[in-house]
Amino acid sequence: MGTAADFDPEHELDRAARRDRARDRMAGEGLDALLLTGGPNLAYFEGASGMLGGESGSRPMLYLLPRDGAPRLLVHEFLAAGIGTDDDCTPLTYDRLSSLPAAELRGALDDAGVSRGRIGVEYGRETTLSVPAGGFREFTEGADATFVDAQPLLADLRSRKSAAEIGRIERACEITDGAFSRTFADVSAGTTGAEVGSLFRRHLLDLGGTAPWGLVACGPGEYDRTASGGSDRTVERGDMVWIDGGCAVGGYFSDFSRAGVVGGPSRRQREAQRAVRRITRHAVDAIEPGVSTSEVASEADTAIDDLDLPTTAHLSRLAGRVGHSLGLQVTELPSLGAGNDGTFEPGMVLTVEPAFATDYGTFHVETNVVVTGDGTRTLPASPRELRTIEP
Amino acid sequence: MGTAADFDPEHELDRAARRDRARDRMAGEGLDALLLTGGPNLAYFEGASGMLGGESGSRPMLYLLPRDGAPRLLVHEFLAAGIGTDDDCTPLTYDRLSSLPAAELRGALDDAGVSRGRIGVEYGRETTLSVPAGGFREFTEGADATFVDAQPLLADLRSRKSAAEIGRIERACEITDGAFSRTFADVSAGTTGAEVGSLFRRHLLDLGGTAPWGLVACGPGEYDRTASGGSDRTVERGDMVWIDGGCAVGGYFSDFSRAGVVGGPSRRQREAQRAVRRITRHAVDAIEPGVSTSEVASEADTAIDDLDLPTTAHLSRLAGRVGHSLGLQVTELPSLGAGNDGTFEPGMVLTVEPAFATDYGTFHVETNVVVTGDGTRTLPASPRELRTIEP
Repeated sequence: MGTAADFDPEHELDRAARRDRARDRMAGEGLDALLLTGGPNLAYFEGASGMLGGESGSRPMLYLLPRDGAPRLLVHEFLAAGIGTDDDCTPLTYDRLSSLPAAELRGALDDAGVSRGRIGVEYGRETTLSVPAGGFREFTEGADATFVDAQPLLADLRSRKSAAEIGRIERACEITDGAFSRTFADVSAGTTGAEVGSLFRRHLLDLGGTAPWGLVACGPGEYDRTASGGSDRTVERGDMVWIDGGCAVGGYFSDFSRAGVVGGPSRRQREAQRAVRRITRHAVDAIEPGVSTSEVASEADTAIDDLDLPTTAHLSRLAGRVGHSLGLQVTELPSLGAGNDGTFEPGMVLTVEPAFATDYGTFHVETNVVVTGDGTRTLPASPRELRTIEP
Repeated sequence: MGTAADFDPEHELDRAARRDRARDRMAGEGLDALLLTGGPNLAYFEGASGMLGGESGSRPMLYLLPRDGAPRLLVHEFLAAGIGTDDDCTPLTYDRLSSLPAAELRGALDDAGVSRGRIGVEYGRETTLSVPAGGFREFTEGADATFVDAQPLLADLRSRKSAAEIGRIERACEITDGAFSRTFADVSAGTTGAEVGSLFRRHLLDLGGTAPWGLVACGPGEYDRTASGGSDRTVERGDMVWIDGGCAVGGYFSDFSRAGVVGGPSRRQREAQRAVRRITRHAVDAIEPGVSTSEVASEADTAIDDLDLPTTAHLSRLAGRVGHSLGLQVTELPSLGAGNDGTFEPGMVLTVEPAFATDYGTFHVETNVVVTGDGTRTLPASPRELRTIEP
C-alpha cells in the first residue's frame, strides 16, 4: 500500500517475514489475531505508508492478521484499486462511507475463526486508533472476542529493523545531511526563523526526501523552545540557528539536529557545543545489546546536571527522554528515558539527543545510530561542530 | 497554537466567538463541556494546526471547554513554551511521557466543576481520538462523568466558516491555481506520474502553501485509480494528466482537480470533459441554503448514469459522495452523498466533484464554492477545459 511516489521496489521489504515474526510473538502472548486500523502499524505489514492513511476518517481501513491463515485487509471499494497487497493478503471491500464497516469486520473475524478469540489492538502508549473511537468501542463491546493492547508486541517487532529498513533510514540521513549544508549556506543575517524552516524543508524535498519536517530556534528567547517551526524574528550576528528535522525515504524517517552561528561561534558557544558533543558521544558509546535504555538516559541527564555552564533549560530532562527509536514514525518506542525498563537490542535504530539551552544557544547535537551485535554504527551525519554562517 | 510558519496574525480568527458559538450549542444539547484530544478540533478552538499535533503519541494534549468558565489546555511541559494560547485559556502542564495524564485530567474536570457532567468527546464519524484509545477508555470508564459523541456539534460549528476562514481557503485556492499552471507547463512526454505529483507539491510550496498534497492519474490503466500519488509510468502523447490536490494556508485547505492532455485533447476527450463540466455546473447551481445535500448529490450521480459515454467507472458513486466540506481538513462534514440528510447553510465551503472515468481519461473538474445567502460563490480556479500539454 502507499502511493507510488513513496514506494521503491528495490527496497521492498519482506512482508511474509514480518508476518512470521508477528505470529511467533502472537503465539507467545496467547493472541489469536492482530487488528490494526491504519497508520504506521498497518503500513508495517502491508507496505510503506502513503496518503491513504489520511482517508480513514470517511473510509476506515482495517487489517486483520490471524495467527493462522491469510491476513485480510478491509478497504472501501473507492480505495481498493490503488492498493497493492501481495498475494497472501485478501482485500475485502465495503461500499459506503462509514464510521466502521462493522458487518464486514464481523465477517472477517468469523471467516478467520477468531470471533471468540483474543485480539490485539492499538490501545497502548504512542499509538492511536485511526478509526472513529465511538464506532470501534461499540464494535468491541458487542463482539464475543476479547480485545487487548498489542502495543508492546508491535513496538518490539518494529523496533528491530531489517537491513532494508536501515537502508532507507540511512538514505534519509544522507538527504538530511545535504539539506543542512544547503540550508546553512542559504541563511544570513536578516533571514527569519520561519524562512529557515521553509528552506530546510525545500532542500529535503529537492534531495529526494518525502514528508520533510523541521523545528527551528534562531536567537535569544527561542533557545528554550525547541518545538517551533520557526518564528518571524530575523537572525542577527551572534545568533545561533538551530535546526532539528529530517525526512522520509520509503516511509522511514531520519531525525537529527545541527546548528550554526551567524558570523561564527563565540568561545562560550564552542565550549557548550563541545560539552554536549562529549555527553552525546558518551551516551552513544554506552549503547550495546543488553544495556538498559534508562541507564544510558540517566547518565546523560546527570552529566548535563553536572555541567558548570549557565543552563536555562535541561531540554532532554524536560522532554522526558534523551532519545528514542525511529522508523515509520519520527518517534517510536523504545524511548531512552526514566521509567523505560527495556534494553538495547541489535537492529534498533535510535536517535540520541541529550540537550540543554543557555541564553546563547540550544546545545543538542542529535545523532542517529544502529545498534549492532556489539555496539553501534553511526548513520551519515553532518559535522557536529557549530558552523559559521556568513553574515 | 501551531508553528509560526503556519500562523498569520492578520488572519487571526476570533477564538472567543468560536467558544461562544460552541457554548450556545452545548447548552442546547445538554453538554457541560467538550473534551478534545488534539488535531483539527483542538486547532479550531486554539489556533491553526501545526506540528504539535504529531507529538500526541508520547505527549498527549487535551483541551477542556466547559460551558461555564475558562477553557483549560493540558499540555506536556516540554511543549508548553511553544504554545501561544490567548488570555482566556489556562494551560496546565504535566511532566512525564504518558498514555494519558489521567490525574491532571481528573483535576481539570474537577476544577471546571464538570466531573459528574455530560461531556462531549470525539467519538463520531470522520473524527479520531488523538490520544491512545486504551488510556482514554480507562479514563472514561473510571470517571463519574458521562461521555457522549460531540461530532454532530463540532462538525456543524466547523462547517459554517467565518470570512477570515474563507479568506484562507480562497488564498489556498489561488495558490493551487498557480501550481496547476506551473505544473502543466513543466510536464511533457517522458515525465512520470510520480514526477508530476512531486512537481505539483513543489510548486504549491513555492507559491506559499503549506501541507501540499496531490493525487495523480497519468494514462490508460490509471484513470480509474484516483487515490494514487503518481506511478512510475511515463506520460505519452494522447495521455491525460489528471491532478487533484491542494495545500493549506493558515491551516485551511483547498481541494480541486484539473487535467491536460499531452499533444492536446482529442474530440472524445473534449466531449467527456464538457459533460462533466456541465454536470458539475448544474450541481453548483442547485446549491443554496435549505436545499438537501443528498438531493444535489443524487441528481449529479443520476446525470452520470445517464451519460451516453463508455464509462469504465462512476467515480463519485464509488467514492460515496459527489463532494464534501473543506476547511481545517481536506475532507470535512457534511458530505454531499446518499444517506446524508443535511441541508446547505450559508458559510459552508464545499467541493463539488461529480466524476467518471473512461479508458481515455478521468473526467472530474472539481470546484470549490462558498454557500452564500442565496446561492454560491465560486472560489478562484484554473480553467476548466482540458489543457494542452506540449509534448
